Amino acid sequence: MDVSTLATSFGARLPAWVLAELADVPAAAPSDAERLALTNRLAARNHREDTGGPFAALVVERDSGLIISAGVNVVLASGLSSVHAEVTALSLAQTRLGRWDLGAPGTPDLELVVNWRPCVMCYGAAMWSGVRRLLIAGDGPELEELTGFDEGPMREDWAAQFAARGIEVAFGDAREEAIAVFAEYGARDDAVVYNARGTATV
Amino acid sequence: MDVSTLATSFGARLPAWVLAELADVPAAAPSDAERLALTNRLAARNHREDTGGPFAALVVERDSGLIISAGVNVVLASGLSSVHAEVTALSLAQTRLGRWDLGAPGTPDLELVVNWRPCVMCYGAAMWSGVRRLLIAGDGPELEELTGFDEGPMREDWAAQFAARGIEVAFGDAREEAIAVFAEYGARDDAVVYNARGTATV
Repeated sequence: MDVSTLATSFGARLPAWVLAELADVPAAAPSDAERLALTNRLAARNHREDTGGPFAALVVERDSGLIISAGVNVVLASGLSSVHAEVTALSLAQTRLGRWDLGAPGTPDLELVVNWRPCVMCYGAAMWSGVRRLLIAGDGPELEELTGFDEGPMREDWAAQFAARGIEVAFGDAREEAIAVFAEYGARDDAVVYNARGTATV
Repeated sequence: MDVSTLATSFGARLPAWVLAELADVPAAAPSDAERLALTNRLAARNHREDTGGPFAALVVERDSGLIISAGVNVVLASGLSSVHAEVTALSLAQTRLGRWDLGAPGTPDLELVVNWRPCVMCYGAAMWSGVRRLLIAGDGPELEELTGFDEGPMREDWAAQFAARGIEVAFGDAREEAIAVFAEYGARDDAVVYNARGTATV
């Protein structure tokens, strides 16, 4: 075959507004509440800026809350279906730290913060990344009901499966704020839902 | 915070040997057997070349077998835990075609070919990519037994969940060849297993 037609590399980048938003934020988010408030704020701005769906994620040091990376969903901006907020945040943390294993021995325990329970792809991405804690604002049917996004087939024992692999799952007190972001997104008449159902508008 | 410390982009690339291997291959792999034989060959070479684990994937046009992209596991080479063979092949296909939705209306149906049932992350990645068929060489306990890799918590009805989203699942007649590659990898005394269990040698 003519291999010159093949793509040989791919990548994604953060929207510029994320850095502007973070410039005004302290270097660390010590409490779960602060971590989730920032994540919800980035998720809301991502859809308002039209850079992606209403999803954001942080990688922070578990104990101190030092922010290692911030990610948002950049599927539309990058043209890649796998760069959900979690994959973006994890990949940026790995790029910054220069290692695929965020749980490498002798390094600070890291945590992934997200504004809803991950979809099935990001569930696995978190599992393989080496993070030791997953902090989520909430879970339940509201995301799918309000936005039309498909979370995919998760197992009933999904949290126990994390625990069996040394990953703690914690729910913060930011569920209503997360739902408000999804409701705002779902109310748009131009919301793009990118999943197996194809390009649908909510 | 000082945002200059943050990573703002990430990416991955194919090992050079993949293009050399593909240069001698026809532009299309019309039969399931040809698609799986090529995938198994790339998986075997990926570990022999020390560019990653024994996994490979293709994106092809379902009807003609025209090869759109080839991917291998580049976790170690890229320093990113999410670039399994499936994510690499899907991302390269999306980069080449310039769209995140491989199932966009009016375009040829595309298929993901893999040398074993995907892990839970790649299960979701395939689901969100827009491919309309998944062709796999095999599934079962042999992968985990021979290599130590964790496939993650999959649901019993994983194939039915694909079907419910318009994605056909097909098993080809290449299971023994796939297992032979895993056995060869597992027999190495320097095999790196990158997953939630940390850096372990088989």
